[in-house]
Amino acid sequence: MPKDKLLGGLLASGFDEGSCLSRYQSSLFQKPSLHKPSSYLLSRLRSYEDLHKRCGPYTKSYNRTQKLLKSHLSASSTKCKYVVWISYSGLGNRVLTLTSAFLYALLTNRVLLVDQGKDMADLFCEPFPEKSWVLPVDFPLKETFKILSQKFPHSYGNMLKKNILNTSTVSLPSYLYLHLAHDYDDHDKLFLCDQDQTLLSRVPWLIMKSDLYFVPSLFLMPSFEQELSKLFPQKDTVFHHLGRYLFYPSNHVWGLITRYYQAYLAKADERIGIQIRNFDTGPGPFQYVMDQVLACTLKYEVLPQVDRKRTIGTQSEKANLKAILITSLSSGYFENVRNMYWEHPTVNGDVVEVFQPSQEQFQHTENRLHNSKAWAEMYLLSLTDVLVTSAWSTFGYVAQGLGGLKPWILYKSDNQTTPNPPCRQAMSMEPCFHAPPFYDCKTKKGMDNGALVPHVRHCEDMSWGLKLVDNHDEL
Amino acid sequence: MPKDKLLGGLLASGFDEGSCLSRYQSSLFQKPSLHKPSSYLLSRLRSYEDLHKRCGPYTKSYNRTQKLLKSHLSASSTKCKYVVWISYSGLGNRVLTLTSAFLYALLTNRVLLVDQGKDMADLFCEPFPEKSWVLPVDFPLKETFKILSQKFPHSYGNMLKKNILNTSTVSLPSYLYLHLAHDYDDHDKLFLCDQDQTLLSRVPWLIMKSDLYFVPSLFLMPSFEQELSKLFPQKDTVFHHLGRYLFYPSNHVWGLITRYYQAYLAKADERIGIQIRNFDTGPGPFQYVMDQVLACTLKYEVLPQVDRKRTIGTQSEKANLKAILITSLSSGYFENVRNMYWEHPTVNGDVVEVFQPSQEQFQHTENRLHNSKAWAEMYLLSLTDVLVTSAWSTFGYVAQGLGGLKPWILYKSDNQTTPNPPCRQAMSMEPCFHAPPFYDCKTKKGMDNGALVPHVRHCEDMSWGLKLVDNHDEL
Ligand SMILES: Nc1nc2c(ncn2[C@@H]2O[C@H](COP(=O)(O)OP(=O)(O)O)[C@@H](O)[C@H]2O)c(=O)[nH]1
Ligand SMILES: Nc1nc2c(ncn2[C@@H]2O[C@H](COP(=O)(O)OP(=O)(O)O)[C@@H](O)[C@H]2O)c(=O)[nH]1
Repeated sequence: MPKDKLLGGLLASGFDEGSCLSRYQSSLFQKPSLHKPSSYLLSRLRSYEDLHKRCGPYTKSYNRTQKLLKSHLSASSTKCKYVVWISYSGLGNRVLTLTSAFLYALLTNRVLLVDQGKDMADLFCEPFPEKSWVLPVDFPLKETFKILSQKFPHSYGNMLKKNILNTSTVSLPSYLYLHLAHDYDDHDKLFLCDQDQTLLSRVPWLIMKSDLYFVPSLFLMPSFEQELSKLFPQKDTVFHHLGRYLFYPSNHVWGLITRYYQAYLAKADERIGIQIRNFDTGPGPFQYVMDQVLACTLKYEVLPQVDRKRTIGTQSEKANLKAILITSLSSGYFENVRNMYWEHPTVNGDVVEVFQPSQEQFQHTENRLHNSKAWAEMYLLSLTDVLVTSAWSTFGYVAQGLGGLKPWILYKSDNQTTPNPPCRQAMSMEPCFHAPPFYDCKTKKGMDNGALVPHVRHCEDMSWGLKLVDNHDEL
Repeated sequence: MPKDKLLGGLLASGFDEGSCLSRYQSSLFQKPSLHKPSSYLLSRLRSYEDLHKRCGPYTKSYNRTQKLLKSHLSASSTKCKYVVWISYSGLGNRVLTLTSAFLYALLTNRVLLVDQGKDMADLFCEPFPEKSWVLPVDFPLKETFKILSQKFPHSYGNMLKKNILNTSTVSLPSYLYLHLAHDYDDHDKLFLCDQDQTLLSRVPWLIMKSDLYFVPSLFLMPSFEQELSKLFPQKDTVFHHLGRYLFYPSNHVWGLITRYYQAYLAKADERIGIQIRNFDTGPGPFQYVMDQVLACTLKYEVLPQVDRKRTIGTQSEKANLKAILITSLSSGYFENVRNMYWEHPTVNGDVVEVFQPSQEQFQHTENRLHNSKAWAEMYLLSLTDVLVTSAWSTFGYVAQGLGGLKPWILYKSDNQTTPNPPCRQAMSMEPCFHAPPFYDCKTKKGMDNGALVPHVRHCEDMSWGLKLVDNHDEL
């Protein structure tokens, strides 16, 4: 067992190790993080854990608070308040929204509970000691979860629109639905305004459904500003630290990860991850994407050049063994790259092996083994030394964040042509918030949120998106 | 460069090493052979090389002898006599028939020349020093080669049938066609009778087209008996020695072999080859074949068992790394085995990696890179420690023979069901002669050729086939 098995205090002690082997074995596979969590973050995590212990499932406070929902009572002052996260969208999206929800819970002293839906069981370990984060199956609103959507009448946005809620309302409902998905409207977006948080803070149950990493917008809210800068003096480490705190593969998934790593990756001198995700038609392979991957990786020397003129390279005793891990729904890119390094020697004598753990052809978000493999692949990508990801993909964001990597991002193509330049290196390892508001909460006018502070910028892969970057000039 | 680079004298010295790197580098990858070639074989190979030098393409003797064909002269006594081998059938078949033709040449003091057809160039190195074995493009009968078949009137069999030839014939033709393919008839088969060899020995050009490894029948011919037992005191080493003498991958193919080996196989503690060839409909995958592969390999402990009840195995420092090399036209078997070892730990803690170099879907016998890969895969299979092959496949025979391996042979299935038992270990590393005569040359009656001598037996994978086995009782 390695010395720093609690990752510099990020992890709580007192877990049963056997129930979550990954938590203590991950440091055998991961490189140590270059980023130390602040001691303030550590102390806030410990006090969150205490809160969770006091308010978690079936505690007195939980039982009392959930009764409010059954009796349709309006909000009264309760000891514990909750954010209930609803499982929604692909696995990468879920990891990011869970992180956003957790940070929001941390900032607002709420308890995070997770509705696992049909297919989240047995992917992740319990992150908090003693009390589960899983929302009990007998939670009163369970049936309601199935019909949550932008149109849901009990959403914060819709209630604002119909003037049922406003800051002076005395009697608040016991729960509100927060619709924070890509199709949210201007009223839903008001969640990200300071003045609205005052009202929300009085509602015991917030039910949140999201496919957006809305953390960058939290950094634009004055009431959270100070706390966030204490929690994250280095601003581009939010997902890195919280991800490494929250997301540990279940033993089942850990088996997939460790077996794959030991069989295929452990002996390499260097590991290169390439995540190929295509949002055009079908899983591919597409020639313009293949061209882009090669243009990017060869240009920036991520992959060694091959010598197409020679049939056999110079043999060298100390040749580097490079393992390329490709993830994609299609197997075509893998076959192409593997054949390239099979059919031709490298110019520099490197020996290159190419792997792809799975080729699932299409996204089946509700199949257990499929999700386990998706999670295993994100994690395996995070263990690489150099990472190449696809624009817009949360799958890639998770890998880069957990791995503490600034990936080469393959630009999104227009009209099925290879973009030029094909890629660029990310400014930070943070995920991109894909649909931030274009709105100033103070002036109530449209405004570019990417131009307000130096540490919230537009993303490399999406011009209207927002992401956190570290900004040393500020410090 | 290793010490025994001439493989105990099997290889001639005096080649240009750069033109055929595999000849001298193969011992870096192959295990040393457990079987020493007899010194008599070595001396016969050296004298063959001398003969080839004197009689090879464009030598005086060659030029003189080929004129006989142009002028339609009948056979006169010539200094050099030839066997011309015609490229026919898949690559495995070709390697075996070339070996048969070479042994026949050796026994009859003929020179072997090779008609490469469209797709043999750049697969093999020249096996004989100084003079090529490639039949010159201006060889007079080139056009005739295209129409050679069982019906060809100038074949030995058809000429016998029409009584144009018989042992008392004074004027023999300058060439005869020997049809030795699976569809040969009883007259064609007389080639394998001693009495017919007397006539044939007077014909300067024998043109041979075959897809059969007819070597076992040569061992049943009294006139060759003594010579063969001096050449091969250990009778099951014919293809092993002659194969390692004749077939060296060209530099282009050697690149494929060495790159693949170094990238995927070199670091394993044990290498297991599984060659899956299906002669039923299409490339598969078929469940009954998959079941058979697993039934065989798990029963005979070729592959480690997986533990389907546990998600994670016991980690061990000294776990064996086993590399499984699967070759098949389909990728389904590979994916299945790879997933099995990904999804489940092994019972004994072994770490298992699974590879398949190519998946070509169907046989394209006339594509250059396709053939290079087929040859590379046969060779890679020969480098494994334990081999599993498919019944009836010459592809597998080549691998086992070059590797000196007694493979586990997967029985041919009936009616698309898994045979029981699924496989057995081969008696010897020799290939099987798939269509031997059922005929006694002396009595001119039908007779089981597998019951004549202890060292020529029926094959494990084909009850009517014949193969050489070593028989120590005899010695
Ligand atoms: N195993 C695997 N699944 C993938 C891959 N790419 C996409 N998927 C599947 O498709 C889903 C994509 O959704 P998500 O993870 O949210 O990522 P995003 O759509 O790229 O932002 C994944 O969760 C997987 O179920 C891949 O490379 N490997
Ligand atoms: N690369 C590759 N080609 C194969 C494989 N199996 C069959 N083939 C192709 O199909 C041909 C089969 O003919 P042959 O080598 O004579 O073997 P046989 O038909 O199995 O006796 C090969 O030469 C290849 O062209 C395989 O596992 N890998």
